[in-house]
Amino acid sequence: MADKSEKTKARLPRGFADRSADDIRAVEKMMATIRGVYELYGFEPVEQPLIEYTDALGKFLPDQDRPNEGVFSFQDDDDQWLSLRYDLTAPTARFVAENYERLPKPYRSYRSGWVFRNEKPGPGRFRQFMQFDADTVGAPSVAADAEMAMMMADVMEALGIKRGQYVVRFSDRRIWDGVLEAIGLASEHTVTRRLTVLRAIDKLDRVGLEGVEELLGPGRADESGDFTKGAGLKSEQILAIMSLLHGSEIDRMAYSGEVIFSGASEAGPLHMKMAFSEDSAFMNNLRALSSKFSINENFSTGLESLETIEKLVRTSGYGADRIRIDGTVVRGLEYYTGPVYEAELLAEIPNEDGQIVRFGSVGGGGRYDGLVSRFRGEPVPATGFSIGVSRLMTALKNLGKLDTSDVIAPVVVLVMDKDTESLGRYQKMVAELRAAGIRSEMYLGGAGMKAQLKYADRRGSPVAIIQGGDERAKGEVQIKDLIEGARMSAEIADNAEWRAARPAQVTVAESELVGEVRKILAAQAEERARGK
Amino acid sequence: MADKSEKTKARLPRGFADRSADDIRAVEKMMATIRGVYELYGFEPVEQPLIEYTDALGKFLPDQDRPNEGVFSFQDDDDQWLSLRYDLTAPTARFVAENYERLPKPYRSYRSGWVFRNEKPGPGRFRQFMQFDADTVGAPSVAADAEMAMMMADVMEALGIKRGQYVVRFSDRRIWDGVLEAIGLASEHTVTRRLTVLRAIDKLDRVGLEGVEELLGPGRADESGDFTKGAGLKSEQILAIMSLLHGSEIDRMAYSGEVIFSGASEAGPLHMKMAFSEDSAFMNNLRALSSKFSINENFSTGLESLETIEKLVRTSGYGADRIRIDGTVVRGLEYYTGPVYEAELLAEIPNEDGQIVRFGSVGGGGRYDGLVSRFRGEPVPATGFSIGVSRLMTALKNLGKLDTSDVIAPVVVLVMDKDTESLGRYQKMVAELRAAGIRSEMYLGGAGMKAQLKYADRRGSPVAIIQGGDERAKGEVQIKDLIEGARMSAEIADNAEWRAARPAQVTVAESELVGEVRKILAAQAEERARGK
Repeated sequence: MADKSEKTKARLPRGFADRSADDIRAVEKMMATIRGVYELYGFEPVEQPLIEYTDALGKFLPDQDRPNEGVFSFQDDDDQWLSLRYDLTAPTARFVAENYERLPKPYRSYRSGWVFRNEKPGPGRFRQFMQFDADTVGAPSVAADAEMAMMMADVMEALGIKRGQYVVRFSDRRIWDGVLEAIGLASEHTVTRRLTVLRAIDKLDRVGLEGVEELLGPGRADESGDFTKGAGLKSEQILAIMSLLHGSEIDRMAYSGEVIFSGASEAGPLHMKMAFSEDSAFMNNLRALSSKFSINENFSTGLESLETIEKLVRTSGYGADRIRIDGTVVRGLEYYTGPVYEAELLAEIPNEDGQIVRFGSVGGGGRYDGLVSRFRGEPVPATGFSIGVSRLMTALKNLGKLDTSDVIAPVVVLVMDKDTESLGRYQKMVAELRAAGIRSEMYLGGAGMKAQLKYADRRGSPVAIIQGGDERAKGEVQIKDLIEGARMSAEIADNAEWRAARPAQVTVAESELVGEVRKILAAQAEERARGK
Repeated sequence: MADKSEKTKARLPRGFADRSADDIRAVEKMMATIRGVYELYGFEPVEQPLIEYTDALGKFLPDQDRPNEGVFSFQDDDDQWLSLRYDLTAPTARFVAENYERLPKPYRSYRSGWVFRNEKPGPGRFRQFMQFDADTVGAPSVAADAEMAMMMADVMEALGIKRGQYVVRFSDRRIWDGVLEAIGLASEHTVTRRLTVLRAIDKLDRVGLEGVEELLGPGRADESGDFTKGAGLKSEQILAIMSLLHGSEIDRMAYSGEVIFSGASEAGPLHMKMAFSEDSAFMNNLRALSSKFSINENFSTGLESLETIEKLVRTSGYGADRIRIDGTVVRGLEYYTGPVYEAELLAEIPNEDGQIVRFGSVGGGGRYDGLVSRFRGEPVPATGFSIGVSRLMTALKNLGKLDTSDVIAPVVVLVMDKDTESLGRYQKMVAELRAAGIRSEMYLGGAGMKAQLKYADRRGSPVAIIQGGDERAKGEVQIKDLIEGARMSAEIADNAEWRAARPAQVTVAESELVGEVRKILAAQAEERARGK
């Protein structure tokens, strides 16, 4: 035994967390539902290991300007660099490239698992988190992207999120590529600057139109005073981008029926609400903008892609309340090359910090045509999305959609005598209960009866079994209904009445143990059902 | 697009593997069953992250004589060392120590997850593998160890492994500690040598009695000529240990009813089989040996522990055919302090390399009273076991116990016309099928009809839907029964007869699509059921 001075401290590194029984069960339930939708769409499970060669993963994280930043890496015994995967998409690309010939194509697959980011952790921001992805490789058609958007919408509804409480928004990176090209940001030399622009657009939700404008220009200081350097664009470049974002903002307000004007007329108070029109202001501004500069291929392909996806999802019966164009969807990862999409929870619910907020993005993805090609030297189109598992689970819990109260705590058989023979007898009772499918356990500590009942209470046990010397002599067992017992203590006034209705404690012959416990559990289940 | 010369090679580091749909589904099924048993026993799920502080994990791997060997480690940005967990027990100890006050005690918990060993990989030996553990912390009584052994036995039977095809063997480390102490290997200076002795005993299965004897003495050269240095014991020390192992070997032969003598008598051929007696030869030799040296505490506690566990499991109705004493069970990890147990598959089935062998250990564990104490500076008893998930899954598959053929491949809607309007129409058919709960997909590639049917075949699809210009004009769809179609090609002789029984292709009105597909799938399901 180590003495106090040399003992190791039990603690976790920052950004890592243990998972509780409740969270594990909730995630399990949620993932089963998501899996059901993926399977319905014809996707097959396939999983990659958590460690890959660093070069196979590539560097596509938002912070990739700082080399190695963001990824946990270490050298193998042959000096090659290995990394923990930072997402599930890069390993999928490696897997598909490695097994290309033998896979049916297009190849629809899904996978869940832990990913790691070697970043500064914060509230609700972990260095290990779980993703649940679906990908289609080998399908160049935007029909594959449309399918992804529809599958995300179906996942949301399968999880019990009502229509109107979520939306899948999509855009196309090539729109912005085309716009940036048109305003003079196309050359290879401006790659970094272009990423800065895209990430500024991606931040619209958090920093607002003014914030984005600053980030496109010289930069922006946030509330804490931290300054983020901007893209340093010229004012006419900023103007072109902002006109599109304004269109997008009008679309958003129209969809959500927001009040755009509150005032008074002679007839009384006046509130004007935006009316939703199928004609998107973003798309109109986009078309208008295109007349000002010479159309390039990116721009026209992107525009066509948005129009086709919209047509496909509408034909399949998905309205603008479920899936719609939103030019501000950009996604942070560098590898996207075409359509990008994002599932957003519109419901205002507590977030991880307990604040009531519009919950925001719970997943997203896009087309990454270059990722498999890195390995094969030939074009291999691919598209897919990723669901942030803990984030979505938190949202569902807060919406009351992930009830795990159907898991009943075990029946506890108390240990009154501690000799081996008695232990064997208690053990046998437990074995009989378990054989009958009743979750149960023998108390395994060294404590007295009172402490054992306290343990059963702490566990939330429904029933306790007691056999001391007296009962044993008569071949009997005492069975305590702990749920009823707790209520009786709480409603002491009605005590007599309750006792008549259902006794909190009975003594039966040993042979009747299982039958009697089953009866009590059934009565408790019935009462729970009534209470709901 | 990268040109050939700069493209990245798609490959996995040695010792890591991708998981196929079949394996994932089989593991899913198996884990659900195991989880059911753990829950029945009152265990609660709880999970730790994959990364911990290196010092919190400690060094208890069999190869720990080479520092850092065996564990993937890297430095955090504050220079502290982090490691990927090498098992689930060390993180559990950290978790319990960190949350000791708020946990109900004894604390029964279970967890599954990936663990990592930075070792030389080999066939069936991976650097990332999955374990599924159950642990009880805070229970000093061997009743907790007995419960573990019974739970392992119940897991085996819940998975469909018949009685007689498995056995849970248990021993107690303190028996060996006591014996080693008695033969002069007790002092701190002989820690390494004692581990070498224990690991030699652990290898009995693989190297036989002679092999162990060599490993206890100067050492042993294996078939490949590799030499393993022995413990260098004196002959009387070796003799004491070998007498126990011989007893253990006799027990093993008796349990398995092995022939110990084949010869001839006047009456004809004679085969003598060992008869099983409740009185273990190992235990008898142990008691005999104890009369030769002064009894020490380890020895007597170990002996008592074995006897108590045996009594407890027998009273609970677990016979020697399910759980029994086996002195050779030692377990490789250093942290065990008392009872150790191991679940063994006796069935002779193909192993990972396809050789027919007695499958051997699929999991095991033991008491680790020192592991939580490392953090708390006070004694915290604990016991638990670990199931090797892929190993057990391989065994179950080979025993035919993990059938995943109930997963039906998706119906494929072929794409005959590629304009957006047609795509939308096909997409709508798929949406309707999915809405009816029928797994289905639209073909997303660019290929012609023949290649699309080949794709459906490769996927194992039950049904293909076709609508070309002609059908479209008439508002009809063609539905191909691909299972029936395949059989018709195979049994071309009976073609006419089959065609009469069930047509492989029908044309129906668009509105009848879902109903007709459902009918065909039902007919296929019925035929599958008949075929079994």
